[in-house]
Amino acid sequence: MSLARVQHISISLDGFATGEGLSLAAPFGHAGDRLHEWMFETCWWRQMIGQPGGTRGVDDAFLRQFAPGIGAEIMGAGKFGYPGWQDDPEWKGWWGSNPPFHTPVFVLTHRPRASIEMEGGTTFHFLDASPTEALAAARAAAAGQDVRIGGGATMVRDFLAAGLIDHMHIVLVPILLGRGVRLWDGLEGLEKDYAIEAMSSPSGVTHVTFTRAGL
Amino acid sequence: MSLARVQHISISLDGFATGEGLSLAAPFGHAGDRLHEWMFETCWWRQMIGQPGGTRGVDDAFLRQFAPGIGAEIMGAGKFGYPGWQDDPEWKGWWGSNPPFHTPVFVLTHRPRASIEMEGGTTFHFLDASPTEALAAARAAAAGQDVRIGGGATMVRDFLAAGLIDHMHIVLVPILLGRGVRLWDGLEGLEKDYAIEAMSSPSGVTHVTFTRAGL
Repeated sequence: MSLARVQHISISLDGFATGEGLSLAAPFGHAGDRLHEWMFETCWWRQMIGQPGGTRGVDDAFLRQFAPGIGAEIMGAGKFGYPGWQDDPEWKGWWGSNPPFHTPVFVLTHRPRASIEMEGGTTFHFLDASPTEALAAARAAAAGQDVRIGGGATMVRDFLAAGLIDHMHIVLVPILLGRGVRLWDGLEGLEKDYAIEAMSSPSGVTHVTFTRAGL
Repeated sequence: MSLARVQHISISLDGFATGEGLSLAAPFGHAGDRLHEWMFETCWWRQMIGQPGGTRGVDDAFLRQFAPGIGAEIMGAGKFGYPGWQDDPEWKGWWGSNPPFHTPVFVLTHRPRASIEMEGGTTFHFLDASPTEALAAARAAAAGQDVRIGGGATMVRDFLAAGLIDHMHIVLVPILLGRGVRLWDGLEGLEKDYAIEAMSSPSGVTHVTFTRAGL
């Protein structure tokens, strides 16, 4: 069974997955790196950027689920680029020539362009599609493996509202951003469809997993 | 030193400390009992209502800090009664003839009335005052002990915004209420003034404590 999975979306205590004032220089706006500092301390992250050390506890364990079993990703236009990237024909995402996905990646945008094949197995496809249509396309590309619902918050919320998410891992970071994009708006009663587990980490964050009932 | 302490304010994952549609019949509106079910399972709660059993783990440990060292409480009008209680001269709070406070309790309201002495040491005083003024009055009544900042969410937020809280215990409940009164609005950067610790409980809730830096 090919699952639709949300992986380690970090949100502040007040529910913001990104700040205000997003730009090429500030991908998360006034939030800066604060939502993701917990990741930078892990062994998984250090290995990815070619550095030694890092923690190997619960934070690392969750992050190591990033690639295994994933055959495709769907991401929102707001994750693929800065506001306005659609006007930049040279924009190929934030991740350099060899992005960390290594699968087909479907970028949801109302202004699709031709697919871009990157190094390392990542190909960006651009779709103007509903969540249901996008998931069908990604599943076909994933060849039986799971599909990562990659964010940002707005598209995760759309997929949750459409009832399409099978498993979700949220990371609560103990800061108050005050403004930005909220993950939770309009999802009253979401817990009815999921088994929810919370686990605090010595790093200060709390991992919250949502597993669809009956999965 | 007399501290101002917030004790076990329960909020949903999306940050609501109470629901919508508050009334005499529904003190927490559409939230019902869902924010407080974790409390009902503890030994502390069972003892208070004269029942045996209950858990004696981390949830119970936090709740047992309710009374010790507290010399007075301040609560908002929305905690003392249902919307409109100010028009009911007989209203004496939700808690019967012997309320669980057993100290002076200062109720913040724009329509103060004469103090009410209850059984068991609780006396309700009614103040039309700023957070700073109310805290001064409560500290004087607490005779060197701490002051409980009792809620609801709106008054806790006012006291946080005024920089008056020394210690705060929040309980994250894994439900999504979708609507109601948010605790966190307007508190960007609050974490700068506090050491924050999160601890998940086997019951499913996560305890988050805020301890003022340097305390």
